Amino acid sequence: MLKYEEIAHKISNLLENEVYSAGDRLPNIEHLKTEYHVSKSTVIKALEILEKNGYIYQSRGSGIFVRSPKREGYINLFTSNGFTEDLKNHEITSRVIEVCEIAKPDAVVRKQLHLTEEEAVYYVKRIRYIDQAVLCIEEAYFSRKLVPYMSGEIAKGSIFKYIEENLKINIGYSDIYFHVDTLNEEEAAILNQSSGAPTLRYEQVFYTKTGVPFDYSQIVFEKTNAKFYIPSIK
Amino acid sequence: MLKYEEIAHKISNLLENEVYSAGDRLPNIEHLKTEYHVSKSTVIKALEILEKNGYIYQSRGSGIFVRSPKREGYINLFTSNGFTEDLKNHEITSRVIEVCEIAKPDAVVRKQLHLTEEEAVYYVKRIRYIDQAVLCIEEAYFSRKLVPYMSGEIAKGSIFKYIEENLKINIGYSDIYFHVDTLNEEEAAILNQSSGAPTLRYEQVFYTKTGVPFDYSQIVFEKTNAKFYIPSIK
Repeated sequence: MLKYEEIAHKISNLLENEVYSAGDRLPNIEHLKTEYHVSKSTVIKALEILEKNGYIYQSRGSGIFVRSPKREGYINLFTSNGFTEDLKNHEITSRVIEVCEIAKPDAVVRKQLHLTEEEAVYYVKRIRYIDQAVLCIEEAYFSRKLVPYMSGEIAKGSIFKYIEENLKINIGYSDIYFHVDTLNEEEAAILNQSSGAPTLRYEQVFYTKTGVPFDYSQIVFEKTNAKFYIPSIK
Repeated sequence: MLKYEEIAHKISNLLENEVYSAGDRLPNIEHLKTEYHVSKSTVIKALEILEKNGYIYQSRGSGIFVRSPKREGYINLFTSNGFTEDLKNHEITSRVIEVCEIAKPDAVVRKQLHLTEEEAVYYVKRIRYIDQAVLCIEEAYFSRKLVPYMSGEIAKGSIFKYIEENLKINIGYSDIYFHVDTLNEEEAAILNQSSGAPTLRYEQVFYTKTGVPFDYSQIVFEKTNAKFYIPSIK
C-alpha cells in the first residue's frame, strides 16, 4: 500500500467507526499533514481518493466535509475500478461464456476503441454474480494492441487486476452511458427472467491514463441485484 | 461570468470546434496561464469545471487529456446542476402538480434531510419534459429551514436557479441512488404508459457547500427519453 493510500485508509476507518459523522468538518490539510507526519501532496492525494469514493466533499474556502456513508451493496459508478474492487464486502464471481479473438470487429467496437479495420480485439462474454446471485451479462472488447493476451482462466477472475498488475496498464478514466430497456429473449434466458423484463442497458469505455481506449463493454444488469450510487458534485 | 468560468468556456469551445480532439494532450497549466493571462489558481479552477463536465482528464504526471465528447441528450449525473443546466441545448419545461407545506414529513424524508419531528418541508411534485416529451415525475422535499418560501410560480421554472440566486444557497454536492424498477398504476397513468413498464427509480439528496441537506428528491424516469452519462475516473 502506498503512503497516500494508507492515509486514505486510516481516515476512512475513522469515518466508518463514526469518529467523524456526516456533516462534520475534517481537520484541514495542514493539520492532517502534521497529524500523519506526511507531506502536503500525500495528504492531497489521500483526500482525492476519499472524495472519489464519496467519503468527503472538499469545498474551496469552506473546508472538508464528511458525506453520508454509501448504502451497502450499491455500485459506485464514479470510480472505474471494476465491480470486484467496488463491492469488496461481497463475493463477486464470474462464469465465462466465451473468450475469443475477433480479427475484424464491427464498426461500433472500432469506433469506441479507435481501431482501424486491421486491428483485432479480444471478446469476453461473462455472467457476473454478486454473492451467488446474478448481477449482469457483460460483453467486453479489449484492444489487442494493449491487451496482447487473454484467456478463460484470466476472465474467471478480475480482468482489471490482470490488466494492471500483469500488463502494467495504468487505468485512467471511463465514459459511462446507460438507459432503461427491456430484456430480449436470449438475455432473459441467461438471467432467468421473462423476455421484456426491465433492465439497465449500459456501455462503458475505459481509457489508460494517457487517453488510449482499451476496453469497450456492453452490460445488461439484472433488475433487483444491481443498485447504483454516484457521489455527485456541483 | 467569473474569470475561471470564462476560461473554461473558451477551452470548451476549442474542444467543441475540434481544435483539440479526443486523446489529444492539452497545453500544461503554466502554458495556459500565460496564454490566457490569468493566475495559476484561475487555470486550476477552469480545468476543474472542464473535468466535471467530462471534457478533460487530468493525469498526475502525464498531463491533461481531451475526452471523447458526450453524446447529445444524455444527462451528466456527475454534476449536480439540475436538468435545466445540464440539458442546455434542449427545452426543459415543467408541469407543476402540487406545491404544499408538510408540517410533519415522514421518517424517510426526515432522515434524508436530517430533520427533527418538528421541522417542516415544502413538497413539490412536477412532471418534467425534454423538448415537450415527458422526462420524469419528480417529487422533491425542501427543508423549510433552508428554503423558507416556495410557490407554484417558482416551481414552474428552475427551482435551483431560485435557490442559488434568490435564497443565496451555495449548492455543494449530492448523493444519487438508483435502480431499475417497474411503474405502478398511478405513475404509468401520468407517463402515459402501461403499469409494469420499465423505469429508473432514482433518489437524490442535495447538500450545501457546508454539508447541510436541503433537497431530497424521488424521481421516476421515462424509459425512452431519459439517457444518462457519467464521466468516471479511476
